[in-house]
Amino acid sequence: MSTVYDVTTWSVPGNPALTCYTDIGAVINSIIADIKAQQPGQASKPGAAIYVPPGDYPLRTRVVVDVSYLTIRGSGHGFTSSSIRYNAGSTASWHEIWPGGSRIRVENTDGRSEAFLVARTGDPRLSSVVFSNFCLDGVGFTPHQNSYRNGKVGIRVDTANDAFRVEGMGFVYLEQALVVRDADALSVSGNFIAECGSCVELVGSGQASKVTDNLIGAGYVGFSVFAEGHEGLLVTGNNVFPRGRSLVHFKNTNRSSISANRFHGFYPGLIDFEGTNRENLISGNHFRREAEPWAPMQPYGNGKDDLYGVVHLRGDANMVSGNLFVYNVPTAKIAPSGATPTVVLVASGADNRLSDNSFAANVAVKAVVLDASTTGTKVLDSATAAQFQSYTSNYTLRPTP
Amino acid sequence: MSTVYDVTTWSVPGNPALTCYTDIGAVINSIIADIKAQQPGQASKPGAAIYVPPGDYPLRTRVVVDVSYLTIRGSGHGFTSSSIRYNAGSTASWHEIWPGGSRIRVENTDGRSEAFLVARTGDPRLSSVVFSNFCLDGVGFTPHQNSYRNGKVGIRVDTANDAFRVEGMGFVYLEQALVVRDADALSVSGNFIAECGSCVELVGSGQASKVTDNLIGAGYVGFSVFAEGHEGLLVTGNNVFPRGRSLVHFKNTNRSSISANRFHGFYPGLIDFEGTNRENLISGNHFRREAEPWAPMQPYGNGKDDLYGVVHLRGDANMVSGNLFVYNVPTAKIAPSGATPTVVLVASGADNRLSDNSFAANVAVKAVVLDASTTGTKVLDSATAAQFQSYTSNYTLRPTP
Amino acid sequence: MSTVYDVTTWSVPGNPALTCYTDIGAVINSIIADIKAQQPGQASKPGAAIYVPPGDYPLRTRVVVDVSYLTIRGSGHGFTSSSIRYNAGSTASWHEIWPGGSRIRVENTDGRSEAFLVARTGDPRLSSVVFSNFCLDGVGFTPHQNSYRNGKVGIRVDTANDAFRVEGMGFVYLEQALVVRDADALSVSGNFIAECGSCVELVGSGQASKVTDNLIGAGYVGFSVFAEGHEGLLVTGNNVFPRGRSLVHFKNTNRSSISANRFHGFYPGLIDFEGTNRENLISGNHFRREAEPWAPMQPYGNGKDDLYGVVHLRGDANMVSGNLFVYNVPTAKIAPSGATPTVVLVASGADNRLSDNSFAANVAVKAVVLDASTTGTKVLDSATAAQFQSYTSNYTLRPTP
Repeated sequence: MSTVYDVTTWSVPGNPALTCYTDIGAVINSIIADIKAQQPGQASKPGAAIYVPPGDYPLRTRVVVDVSYLTIRGSGHGFTSSSIRYNAGSTASWHEIWPGGSRIRVENTDGRSEAFLVARTGDPRLSSVVFSNFCLDGVGFTPHQNSYRNGKVGIRVDTANDAFRVEGMGFVYLEQALVVRDADALSVSGNFIAECGSCVELVGSGQASKVTDNLIGAGYVGFSVFAEGHEGLLVTGNNVFPRGRSLVHFKNTNRSSISANRFHGFYPGLIDFEGTNRENLISGNHFRREAEPWAPMQPYGNGKDDLYGVVHLRGDANMVSGNLFVYNVPTAKIAPSGATPTVVLVASGADNRLSDNSFAANVAVKAVVLDASTTGTKVLDSATAAQFQSYTSNYTLRPTP
Repeated sequence: MSTVYDVTTWSVPGNPALTCYTDIGAVINSIIADIKAQQPGQASKPGAAIYVPPGDYPLRTRVVVDVSYLTIRGSGHGFTSSSIRYNAGSTASWHEIWPGGSRIRVENTDGRSEAFLVARTGDPRLSSVVFSNFCLDGVGFTPHQNSYRNGKVGIRVDTANDAFRVEGMGFVYLEQALVVRDADALSVSGNFIAECGSCVELVGSGQASKVTDNLIGAGYVGFSVFAEGHEGLLVTGNNVFPRGRSLVHFKNTNRSSISANRFHGFYPGLIDFEGTNRENLISGNHFRREAEPWAPMQPYGNGKDDLYGVVHLRGDANMVSGNLFVYNVPTAKIAPSGATPTVVLVASGADNRLSDNSFAANVAVKAVVLDASTTGTKVLDSATAAQFQSYTSNYTLRPTP
Repeated sequence: MSTVYDVTTWSVPGNPALTCYTDIGAVINSIIADIKAQQPGQASKPGAAIYVPPGDYPLRTRVVVDVSYLTIRGSGHGFTSSSIRYNAGSTASWHEIWPGGSRIRVENTDGRSEAFLVARTGDPRLSSVVFSNFCLDGVGFTPHQNSYRNGKVGIRVDTANDAFRVEGMGFVYLEQALVVRDADALSVSGNFIAECGSCVELVGSGQASKVTDNLIGAGYVGFSVFAEGHEGLLVTGNNVFPRGRSLVHFKNTNRSSISANRFHGFYPGLIDFEGTNRENLISGNHFRREAEPWAPMQPYGNGKDDLYGVVHLRGDANMVSGNLFVYNVPTAKIAPSGATPTVVLVASGADNRLSDNSFAANVAVKAVVLDASTTGTKVLDSATAAQFQSYTSNYTLRPTP
């Protein structure tokens, strides 16, 4: 039997009327059932590859992936901006109006939220499941097209997993694009994840994973990259553009790296640390904070003010080094009104270090602010004396000359 | 109808004599016409994938891509060094003499310069066109094989575009490999682009794009990476080798990053800023400047002298941090004769910052030179007092101890 | 003739009993023989693509690749942890017990060590051979499953080569995963190489290559990344996890970069320089050194003690900048007993520079130690006075305030 399946040629046993053009979810579930039937023995379960050619496919039934070594791949992430289209007025003359490529329209009629749920109980953890080079399109938001809400999830991995790959995918107009629980050695690379409520959410726990070389931009309601309880996560080489309630959000995440990325955001808190985050490295990144320039999105924000910090640190012994921060917000849009904006806020924790950071701003800023609860922060060449403000005396400052 | 095409099996309607072995360009144009015929409605235009198996294909007619979501992919970028071969003397005993893989020989007989022109008027912009894993070979230069001139362009994207990908491609012996106008969220990643006049040229304007994880080396006549009018470009993780008139050339490009790359060049101006470039970050790169070691290329250069700077900055509030510069040019080859070479020249602008850069050199160098027109440059731990030269008094220096 | 082969459908001329399910090595050799027969002329040798669908394939005969432009690709690197499985006790109830995807079991019965040997004499060098997205599984170690020894080599490239790619591969339970001699412009990217004695070994010499965006973790006996005689190697964006005798080992390697990686190790010498290594850049990396937490591996180590350095430098004019070092080893496990651990040891050489490095540790450490033989080291903001120790007076120190 072949281990290579094509959704356009698969015949669902006993249900010839069911095709990928009526419900690709049910078709893929049927294929997975066949894989399991073909590989019954413990001794040889190499998995399979399911191909999704370019096309428009409705997904009405959630796919449940409960086998290791399954690759689901298409030929094109097919991103286009639905946000521009929905806010464009008449599109009657447009060449096309929807995303494309190997495009799965997430239109569950089964009461489920997810297009793909990956989960299995027992041992071992699922290994090496791959999503590659197709499009998951949530089609529309509710109650209006700028809400970033529709309850739809592109891919949810809900049990511990090892060596998964999400590569070259497109996600658009989903409330949550990718949610992975308890990841080990996960690779999220080369994807285009934009105009989703949240883009990459690594929840529960995780270790030794990487989010690299992606183009990412969440909505104002969610996270571009979120990591909870992770150790040794590497976030590098990404171009993270607006909007995103935050661009990288760490919650109780330790010994991880945020390096050599480009970050562009419209609200405070581009990097947002929640809980206690220890010994993380934020280095070599470019941060650009400006005000929302696009009228349709100007009503929205993340609710934070400019004293929150472009970077908001909580935790101990983190290092913020070699970054360039560019702050450019019209005075009238700075909140609270009349405030001097904070670029890096050390909101809690001990022994954090900021060194060799540069700041360019259209207004006077506090490059570094230390909360009264912080101890032992070292600020080296990261703020002139005038750009530095501390609410504690427990720190070391070598001002930028 | 299938959305997956193979150039070796496509029959051109009405012209059975035309095949990919007579003119792959005309064949691909015929396939694109079929895609448009098959997808006439605005409501569903998912595009297609065109496969180019390993083979030798002449392209006599320019391909015009005017549909979104088209993937053209091969199985192998097929790079080999034509430069070595053309300069090798007799190759009669060689195993092979040409590039290979999915190799398209760019041999236009239609009066056009480009192998592929991507352009469309009207709305929306073209989205998610993908070039992947095949070879565009210009075959030869004129009037001689070391000229880097033949008027041939591999891919020219000439209208505004979104979410394009150029990945895993090979380009060789073209005067211009890849030229993209007005890019948004472009990804140029994992390519091998070498022995071309220019390699990556991002012209007009652009935003939120990335050039990552490539192997790149232009000829002495052109650019390895050129970006004009870009915002938020991320150039990271590339190994950029000789030659290149410059290795990264920014023209009126702002808030972009050049980080964690390896740069190796034979002429001054490895990084070259033209016009006004603001708030860019150059960090964590390795720079190696040496003299041309290969006899066939020693007659050539980029016309700049060693006072131009290995890095030539023009603009404001740029940050150059955490780089290692290795300069090794025999005294006799330094120009002007007897000059002390400049490593980083701040040629114009205000508020630039150089911090924590290291320099190794075979001769005494000026690590940092400030032009008389510059203001407010900060030079921190980036030059000893002896390695620093300023033609203005408007600067801050903390010499490397 | 097609240039696209499938191992599951190839009929070996004269030997119909031989299939990919009896010996995939002999089948691939037969395909390569056919490629050579089909492409006899020097003027057109585009090579071919050999596809390995998901499946379990024994390799009994070594493959010899001696043609350029050959792509061997699968649909899934199929990694799972064999180490966990072998140490798990009964796995009778497990869903699966072996790696999967396009899985080649390396079971040579031909007296050879390698699954794949890539080599050719004469001119030119082999170019653009690609290994992509399949699994090389050594199946088991001897004499026990935690030895990392079985004499098996996944891929050995043994003659000079240009523009090779190893991408998206999985390697597991091999004594040596990938060994490449005399590489030029090699790309090792997006792979999962773990639970092998050594992972990436670049031997002999090499230039302008890159090891990027990989997940890598060797055994205690070998190297995660080894480079000998290289120039301009770029090691960036990798998540390198335990164990590894060393994580990056440079031997007489110059002007190379180790940047924006995450390194996690259980022994001294995460970065290990042997011989003389000049003008390398180690920047923006996260280093985490802790003690082996897993009982089955606690009997093993690399034989080095905590005075060796988490980073052990030998050579001249190297730059170590912008790194975060996290050292967390219980006092009882520090060797020699009672010693103050060394984080960065400059063991030999002149004019090295350590600048802007941060250190977090559970015990008092010497952040930087200079050997008596060293000269001209500059230590800037990389150790407090108490964290610095020098056995020479020939240095410059600006202690971290």
